[in-house]
Amino acid sequence: MVKRLSYLGPAGTYSEEAAILYDSQAELVPFPTIPAVCRAVSDGLTDEGIVPIENSIEGSVVYTLDYLISETDLSIFHEVVLPIQHCLMIKPDTRTEDVRIIYSHPQSLAQCRRFLEDNFPGAEPIASLSNSAAVNHMMESGTTAAAIAPQRAAELYGAEIIERGIQDVTNNVTRFVLLGWKDHEPTSADKTSLCFAFAEDAPGSLYNALGVFASRDINLVKIESRPTKESLGQYNFLVDCEGHRENDLVKEALDALETQVSSLKVFGSYPRWQQTSGN
Amino acid sequence: MVKRLSYLGPAGTYSEEAAILYDSQAELVPFPTIPAVCRAVSDGLTDEGIVPIENSIEGSVVYTLDYLISETDLSIFHEVVLPIQHCLMIKPDTRTEDVRIIYSHPQSLAQCRRFLEDNFPGAEPIASLSNSAAVNHMMESGTTAAAIAPQRAAELYGAEIIERGIQDVTNNVTRFVLLGWKDHEPTSADKTSLCFAFAEDAPGSLYNALGVFASRDINLVKIESRPTKESLGQYNFLVDCEGHRENDLVKEALDALETQVSSLKVFGSYPRWQQTSGN
Repeated sequence: MVKRLSYLGPAGTYSEEAAILYDSQAELVPFPTIPAVCRAVSDGLTDEGIVPIENSIEGSVVYTLDYLISETDLSIFHEVVLPIQHCLMIKPDTRTEDVRIIYSHPQSLAQCRRFLEDNFPGAEPIASLSNSAAVNHMMESGTTAAAIAPQRAAELYGAEIIERGIQDVTNNVTRFVLLGWKDHEPTSADKTSLCFAFAEDAPGSLYNALGVFASRDINLVKIESRPTKESLGQYNFLVDCEGHRENDLVKEALDALETQVSSLKVFGSYPRWQQTSGN
Repeated sequence: MVKRLSYLGPAGTYSEEAAILYDSQAELVPFPTIPAVCRAVSDGLTDEGIVPIENSIEGSVVYTLDYLISETDLSIFHEVVLPIQHCLMIKPDTRTEDVRIIYSHPQSLAQCRRFLEDNFPGAEPIASLSNSAAVNHMMESGTTAAAIAPQRAAELYGAEIIERGIQDVTNNVTRFVLLGWKDHEPTSADKTSLCFAFAEDAPGSLYNALGVFASRDINLVKIESRPTKESLGQYNFLVDCEGHRENDLVKEALDALETQVSSLKVFGSYPRWQQTSGN
């Protein structure tokens, strides 16, 4: 049976590219919001869901973090790191020198500001709700428009790519996580994502909590604080550590952590993404 | 002499609202990007600059963090916390029941999704490059359009606000920081913002670094990791702690921290924002 994979639509976005990178055989089902992608799995409409969690330029996707913290019991069981390659595309009958309008999502326009200033100083940027919608607008307009979008959108709409990787910062990657009913089984290179909070904001409580990892030589890969929704001064701490929660050392650390915090939630254990890996 | 204050333009955005909240007497000078706001101060075009650093829903403004980490020697000397109140506005001669189009920045449209579904289920959302541009488009179109923008934009363009605070999550605030040539002098309730990194990613190094604060009962207000631009696995750690860097305990902690890390940069010490405080 073909696996059904929910993702953040519409088709032609980086989320769809990530879904294909993860599993090119899956049946992809688009949903309009991050909660809807996850609920599709919870409700049995799809088998797995993929959501963006972090971009190297824009930072964390806090909608995903907040959903993991308080709204779902699904596990992270995989991650995918997608290089973000903004492409400039036109209709096949448009001439580059005629381009006067550039459609894209404001975030993509901002990420390509220097390229546009250098190469299209007179063109007017026009905002779209998504990169995919930008290509749609461009294809429906005259022959003086271009759009900035992922390669996948060009394939879908029959646009012609005239330049790839036009973002000003070259190291632009987005990390996506796969959500399902259980963790990945242990491999030789895993990560565990978790979050915890303290009832009271005492000096040293975070320090002591991190001690459960340090004393066991467990490396922390990421740490972040997110204000809880109750009050501005209170935080959830999100930590990625090396290892699988079925490893003895990690299990011990989590047991020790539980005695120090007011809440602890493990989002899941999964293999670290490697450039050459896929599914 | 009137103080000149650079901010992230255009006029009619939340950044301008924050600048006015900080100092309603200053001469406000808009710049198109966060680096340009800061360079205006460095180059002597303005006396101070104000930039967004964190939103309670969207997370950190990583452009500001990265600029503070590696691009500027300016100090944070103040902070301003602005409640984000998305307002729905129309032309004075538009009737609410005629609205078929809603202009705004995609982020604001997303933050008001539920309100729009409940109250304008048939209206088409149209993306703008900024909330201010959205009001401009709306004022120049027929009488079937509305825009989502800050109150300030309604004042500037002569639009009529028909509903305030329409964002789905009510606790929506943005923290801005003021940048200038030196810290604020110590008060009774200060914060110090800093960042540090390690030459090697050893287990326990973050734990040991936080120990310099914990052992002195210095509370941490925020912690975050940002990948360095050199390599994906290496991090800068950004910490806000309580106290001023001229306080003895904080000074001691920073001296101790310096011996443990490969780089340490203090962004500045400044009074914690209080609801009733202004400038």
